[in-house]
Amino acid sequence: MTILVDGREAGSIPASDRALHYGDGVYRTLEWREGRARLWPWQWQRLSHDAAALGLDLPEPERILEELARAVGGLQRAVCKIILSRDGSRRGYAIAPDAATRRTISAVPWNGYPAAMSERGVAVRLCELRLGLQPRLAGIKHLNRLENVLARSEWTDADIAEGLLLDSEGTLVEGTMSNVFLVRDGELRTAALDRCGVAGAVRACLLAQDVVHVGRLTLADLEAADEAFLCNSLAGIWPIARFGAHCWREFPRAQALARALAAADDPAF
Amino acid sequence: MTILVDGREAGSIPASDRALHYGDGVYRTLEWREGRARLWPWQWQRLSHDAAALGLDLPEPERILEELARAVGGLQRAVCKIILSRDGSRRGYAIAPDAATRRTISAVPWNGYPAAMSERGVAVRLCELRLGLQPRLAGIKHLNRLENVLARSEWTDADIAEGLLLDSEGTLVEGTMSNVFLVRDGELRTAALDRCGVAGAVRACLLAQDVVHVGRLTLADLEAADEAFLCNSLAGIWPIARFGAHCWREFPRAQALARALAAADDPAF
Repeated sequence: MTILVDGREAGSIPASDRALHYGDGVYRTLEWREGRARLWPWQWQRLSHDAAALGLDLPEPERILEELARAVGGLQRAVCKIILSRDGSRRGYAIAPDAATRRTISAVPWNGYPAAMSERGVAVRLCELRLGLQPRLAGIKHLNRLENVLARSEWTDADIAEGLLLDSEGTLVEGTMSNVFLVRDGELRTAALDRCGVAGAVRACLLAQDVVHVGRLTLADLEAADEAFLCNSLAGIWPIARFGAHCWREFPRAQALARALAAADDPAF
Repeated sequence: MTILVDGREAGSIPASDRALHYGDGVYRTLEWREGRARLWPWQWQRLSHDAAALGLDLPEPERILEELARAVGGLQRAVCKIILSRDGSRRGYAIAPDAATRRTISAVPWNGYPAAMSERGVAVRLCELRLGLQPRLAGIKHLNRLENVLARSEWTDADIAEGLLLDSEGTLVEGTMSNVFLVRDGELRTAALDRCGVAGAVRACLLAQDVVHVGRLTLADLEAADEAFLCNSLAGIWPIARFGAHCWREFPRAQALARALAAADDPAF
């Protein structure tokens, strides 16, 4: 793994960083392939949005892309992570007016998912943990991820690719590391993320590619769906093939959207 | 500042630490005075509880105390912080079965609060941010503290010592960095922390010193209180002297409890 902290190769971050103390920061995980960051316009759109929401100064995108390229080095394909945080030399929650944004940018050789998961679909389960409602942090890919950690701790069965999360009111929100979309009677639907959840870059791209109804979803909506799929930046699109007793065998809409996603990311277009 | 990471002096923590990525860890802040950690039995009680709640292996208390003493060095009085987290060399929320607990223990010369705040009381305000309800994390002093950061960002007026936090249902829970107690007709009351909030070591000690009614509080309860006070490990007990138009001038119960706290912490007893 190569890690650049504010542009310099390092294996560690200062112990005064507020990411360590408070999770005070935002991040993106992305795929690097053949010399470029995939879905970069949407990654950048979300990163900018999230940094602004926490009052983090945003570095120039060119600087981040240059550091991503340096971290990736000679790798053809890599998993990259961008963390924006800030230092907290003074004790306490208050943010110093002069706290500069710290960039922690890392790359590892591709360790993403087998293509079969996108082609044949995946099995998912329901997590017991319910997401708390916090509109002020909803949608933001911030560094307070204990709910996801607890939810992901609920299963070890390798056949289960993802766990679905409801909020405290029973609304279907997302997977532990993915956004969820349903198809019913030709209509594409995804969960509104105004009360909890993380708005991913693939979700943002799909919202720009197709007409999507964004609102409250329930498990009953999932069970009645003609198709359902999960998405994130490393998985792409995973059709849901099994959820409890419910099975799906055909995923034409998910496959079409996977093609749209690839086209949206093609620099030739 | 002296920082010991797993017992070795260091200024930084490995970039693979899950505290950085997910806020996956717990902490305590405490006062060191004249050769010992104040309120240690209650600090340890809470630290053990919180570590168990997140599945963190707990170091021996003797090891933590020894490292605290080393971090403090020759200081007579210091602010110390204990962070327990774990490494995450593998990507993703799942916790590796062999993930060892990392100890990050630091000390700085005392930079706590003037005694006048305890003697004369403090002015507090109401925060706009409402705490989300998450029973699975409630009470735990974990590293996901963005709600506190956002709440503390709401004011800069140095005359305001603390901001009070309601939860999403309007219940009075705590301050951004303190627990809250009310006195009414001789009865001592504090907020139940089973849905959100952080259970501090001073609160734990007070619950052991006196009969305290633990339940749901409201702003109306505060406004009708004969006395109200905040507590944390660096402030001790701060009577609330002003909240909006409400003023309090006498704090006999808070002062008696401050004495009980000092006695509870006295190694001669």
